[in-house]
Amino acid sequence: MPLGERHGGDKSESRYCGIETEFDDDMPNLLSYNVHGGFDFILATLMDPNYRPSLLDNDTSRSRALPFAGSDLVLSPSQWSSHVVGKISSWIDLDSEDETLREDSEITLKQEIAWASHLSLQACLLPTPKGSSCANYARCLNQIFQNLGGMQLWLRIPLVKSEDDTEAKNPDCMGEGKVDSWELWNSFRLLCEHHSQLSVALDLLSSLPSASSVARWFGEPIRAAIINTNSFLTNAKGYPCLSKRHQRLATAFFDHSVQIVISGRSVHKVPVGTSESHVDNQIEGWRHPLKSYLDYVAFLYQKMDPLPEQERFELGYRDYLQSPLQPLMDNLEAQTYEIFEKDTCKYSQYQRAVAKALVDRVPDEDASRVTTVLMVVGAGRGPLVRASLQAAEETDRKLKIYAVEKNPNAVVTLHSLIKLEGWEGIVTIVSSDMRSWDAPEKADILVSELLGSFGDNELSPECLDGAQRFLKEDGISIPSSYTSFVQPVTACKLYNDIKSHKDLVHFETAYVVKLHRVARLAHTQPVFTFTHPDHSPTASNQRYKKLQFDIPEDTGAALIHGFAGYFDATLYKDVHLGIEPSTCTPNMFSWFPIFFPLRTPVCVQPGSPLEVHFWRCCGSTKVWYEWCVTSPSASPLHNTNGRSYWVGL
Amino acid sequence: MPLGERHGGDKSESRYCGIETEFDDDMPNLLSYNVHGGFDFILATLMDPNYRPSLLDNDTSRSRALPFAGSDLVLSPSQWSSHVVGKISSWIDLDSEDETLREDSEITLKQEIAWASHLSLQACLLPTPKGSSCANYARCLNQIFQNLGGMQLWLRIPLVKSEDDTEAKNPDCMGEGKVDSWELWNSFRLLCEHHSQLSVALDLLSSLPSASSVARWFGEPIRAAIINTNSFLTNAKGYPCLSKRHQRLATAFFDHSVQIVISGRSVHKVPVGTSESHVDNQIEGWRHPLKSYLDYVAFLYQKMDPLPEQERFELGYRDYLQSPLQPLMDNLEAQTYEIFEKDTCKYSQYQRAVAKALVDRVPDEDASRVTTVLMVVGAGRGPLVRASLQAAEETDRKLKIYAVEKNPNAVVTLHSLIKLEGWEGIVTIVSSDMRSWDAPEKADILVSELLGSFGDNELSPECLDGAQRFLKEDGISIPSSYTSFVQPVTACKLYNDIKSHKDLVHFETAYVVKLHRVARLAHTQPVFTFTHPDHSPTASNQRYKKLQFDIPEDTGAALIHGFAGYFDATLYKDVHLGIEPSTCTPNMFSWFPIFFPLRTPVCVQPGSPLEVHFWRCCGSTKVWYEWCVTSPSASPLHNTNGRSYWVGL
Repeated sequence: MPLGERHGGDKSESRYCGIETEFDDDMPNLLSYNVHGGFDFILATLMDPNYRPSLLDNDTSRSRALPFAGSDLVLSPSQWSSHVVGKISSWIDLDSEDETLREDSEITLKQEIAWASHLSLQACLLPTPKGSSCANYARCLNQIFQNLGGMQLWLRIPLVKSEDDTEAKNPDCMGEGKVDSWELWNSFRLLCEHHSQLSVALDLLSSLPSASSVARWFGEPIRAAIINTNSFLTNAKGYPCLSKRHQRLATAFFDHSVQIVISGRSVHKVPVGTSESHVDNQIEGWRHPLKSYLDYVAFLYQKMDPLPEQERFELGYRDYLQSPLQPLMDNLEAQTYEIFEKDTCKYSQYQRAVAKALVDRVPDEDASRVTTVLMVVGAGRGPLVRASLQAAEETDRKLKIYAVEKNPNAVVTLHSLIKLEGWEGIVTIVSSDMRSWDAPEKADILVSELLGSFGDNELSPECLDGAQRFLKEDGISIPSSYTSFVQPVTACKLYNDIKSHKDLVHFETAYVVKLHRVARLAHTQPVFTFTHPDHSPTASNQRYKKLQFDIPEDTGAALIHGFAGYFDATLYKDVHLGIEPSTCTPNMFSWFPIFFPLRTPVCVQPGSPLEVHFWRCCGSTKVWYEWCVTSPSASPLHNTNGRSYWVGL
Repeated sequence: MPLGERHGGDKSESRYCGIETEFDDDMPNLLSYNVHGGFDFILATLMDPNYRPSLLDNDTSRSRALPFAGSDLVLSPSQWSSHVVGKISSWIDLDSEDETLREDSEITLKQEIAWASHLSLQACLLPTPKGSSCANYARCLNQIFQNLGGMQLWLRIPLVKSEDDTEAKNPDCMGEGKVDSWELWNSFRLLCEHHSQLSVALDLLSSLPSASSVARWFGEPIRAAIINTNSFLTNAKGYPCLSKRHQRLATAFFDHSVQIVISGRSVHKVPVGTSESHVDNQIEGWRHPLKSYLDYVAFLYQKMDPLPEQERFELGYRDYLQSPLQPLMDNLEAQTYEIFEKDTCKYSQYQRAVAKALVDRVPDEDASRVTTVLMVVGAGRGPLVRASLQAAEETDRKLKIYAVEKNPNAVVTLHSLIKLEGWEGIVTIVSSDMRSWDAPEKADILVSELLGSFGDNELSPECLDGAQRFLKEDGISIPSSYTSFVQPVTACKLYNDIKSHKDLVHFETAYVVKLHRVARLAHTQPVFTFTHPDHSPTASNQRYKKLQFDIPEDTGAALIHGFAGYFDATLYKDVHLGIEPSTCTPNMFSWFPIFFPLRTPVCVQPGSPLEVHFWRCCGSTKVWYEWCVTSPSASPLHNTNGRSYWVGL
């Protein structure tokens, strides 16, 4: 039974809660007991924990069945696949110094995975690697992955990181006793080459590492969070509850489709008959011993704020890679205009900017006399024309507008809009590319919305270079400047999606993507800035920027899969618009961030800086970015000469 | 004129010596002056050093020719390509903070390379990156490589590494002032993805870094060593000479086809008329001012020991990757037998081992009475039969030999050999696979030569497991044991050859290769050992070994492209045979080392250990190795389930 039903048809995995169980030969009873007790699935040991291949008599082993819990027939196929996650024997130790134990472990692991596959389980939980070495464990898994069906393997990892790095205080014991379970996970998944069927089940202990260290995990493929009953506190009424930090973490897990699993024995004596909710079980006079923990998790789930309308709309876009638009080469479709025109926040910012510019341009005393010439370059189906006219009305200024648009399909709509709104005397439609249009007069104000997720990536600089020919010497461009920003991120999901193409091109392409399962590892830094108009004779749209990111020390080591990119634009004076996280315009949905991948993820150790280079290169027919990392170690140059990804002029 | 002519038709590049020149508009004169002076080629600046693109008047720049030294017509095409290496303007600084200088540098670099390509020069010398940053320089080169013909680009790198790492003594100034030019080269070539047209020209200064630090460079693509006249010492007669260490290094360069280039002004006043050699120039009454340096280099070249016969024979195999034999699945060809049978050192070791075993087995008093049953398993065309018979003769023991061979073609030769030698009464030929042969009696001694470069890699263990059925309980196997060894190496050439296939399979294959242009970074360590006979009931031929290599601290950082593998076999008691470098059998040529590549080279920082894992895995139809690195960072598992490389049973 799901934890709850959130607004808008909750389809998230995280509404299910599981329970970790002990080995039990009677699987049907084990399952019905826990499902009846309110849990959605069980983490069940499949094989008798006393089994060791090396203890078997060689003669009998051939005829004897393996000591699995029951046969495949004891549950229905849908029960196996919907309600059971296999728990691989926890005694296995594939990197033991003891060769017999190692070989027993390998045989058992392969037998249990084969059995779980036979049962069509959705997932198996793999025990935490013992010690810090995991090469042989990873080797066996690689062999297993080669013939595994669709089953997921969840590697169990405790969420621990020793905080108090003693390096600075005592150089003699440098590195000693330092534990960071993320590093174990990282080695494991590198050995398994980010295999898409390998994911993480995090064990939540009673104390949590620092916030930035925990944040790393949100770029990883976490499938489950296992909370031991020992990690719960006790509230005033004697019920289990979680610390504030645990609560926040649980909520973040819910938001990332991570399922909770309760583990351990009941350590809270809940007074019988005082539970307010779930009367149904009370009537039957029986409560699952861990029911109060489950109730608390359900309570946390249900008290989450509902997703804002916009977030709900964007759910389907989360972590979904899109190729950036080619607005110069391709014409937008009606549908695309339709969506972008709905972004009222964006246009109200434009209206504010135009209003301020009009007032600056024309003093109140001249308002009735002077007509300002405003050109909307890239007018589309007219939203900026409308915003400009509203600004004129608001400020009582007189306006003459040229609406320049290169897409003939949009021009059709513009004509009918003007007729409909009665703007015939004010607005002149120009069906032309702004770069080649021969304007009959010069403009006071040039308004455009040519920005991409990374600011200049849809070639606003090149277009406005062409358009500023018909801007008066002292004319105003709205936007007057824009800057791109990047930050390093862990983004396992995106990396795997790119890798699945098995080519270079996809690793050298920047994608537009609604980032969700990512860990942002450092604050953003500005990359390229463009200012309009730019009358300097040597102006160039080529750019080069070297950036150094210092990841907070308490994060620990981190893996960089690429860079999240954003922009911020100054429309006019203090009116800005953008998606840079710390300053972003609220409720605007026209832009998702951009993502620049790395062909090989770069691991950064704590205290060691990350040095990154971005270039904006211009050719006669295209513009492109190149990028690379030079520290802690040099990556290849990405996208040389725009061989994989470019924007056509 | 070459430095000399070494024994056996010297085809090496290194017999040519060049000279670095100043910019000169008169290219024909510059060339003839230096060629006349005895040098084979000139390093010549192509463009006027005063040229800066940003200083040009925009109007005139279109019509004006670039200030190159002369036109393409001033030299013949063969003069350009045989005697001129272009020297890119040394003022260029692509990573300067000064944007104008950076842009001037990029334009000039591209213009000069384009000009050099137009002239079909074989190579251009690129100036050393200024400062420690080189990302923009590397980016430009990547762009250039995309459209470059066959020209090589030599990146000039001074051979320097500050030796006295002060870290231990003074932790406050850790890392400060540390210079290791190899690291600069390493970043550069990682950014250029080991481009095969990017190589190194090393500047030799008057002091040299430690031997192990210099040794790293022999795994790199060094094309030239530039020796400034300042780096020469003065001998008792006033002539220039080099220090012992410089001499050894120069000799090593000659041996690695690295050309010497003399640079700088004459700083040795050689008494006129006292030079004994090269009378020709004296007669003309003119000597090139740097002639005495050239003479000294020629002297060093000529006094090198001639290559041993075997090395000369193997010249063509240097750094040439061969797939290992599949001796069980394929039958060897007559030619292959022919070559291996010539390895007399190997067979004399076998003879010694058999002799010792015979004496141990049969005391002198029984020698005339007892006949020892000896089986040669894998007899081929009979060399081990012959060695065994010689051992019997030498020790006066009586022998009965079974020669077991699965290759029917070799059996034909065996029959004729026995008739020819009159061995009919002693040798019985068995045309069968030793693993399935039903022997009529049991053997005292089992002799085999089934070893591959990595010992067990041609499945000697599996074959001898089958053969030991017909060895007496107390019988002797020759070899009685063998062990494989590995060591980490830098091997740019091999890496590039593997990479050129653009697939995974070649990166997960072990190759037999005569290693030459490699840097061995640590001592070898043993990997797998097999002992014969092995009567233990649980014996398995699967193996797992974890190794930790500590690269000497004074090496500096190093890049590992893979692992060189060897074997050593104990034939009997103290008689061994092998190719492990520190103990190898002299003058044996049957085996080249084996090379296990890494898909991504691993960079190891000084003081940080390299942890490596090797597995030998056995299936029902094949045997294979898997391998990985786990420290300093985890590599992918290589060759999972033998997907790329395996040996058939």
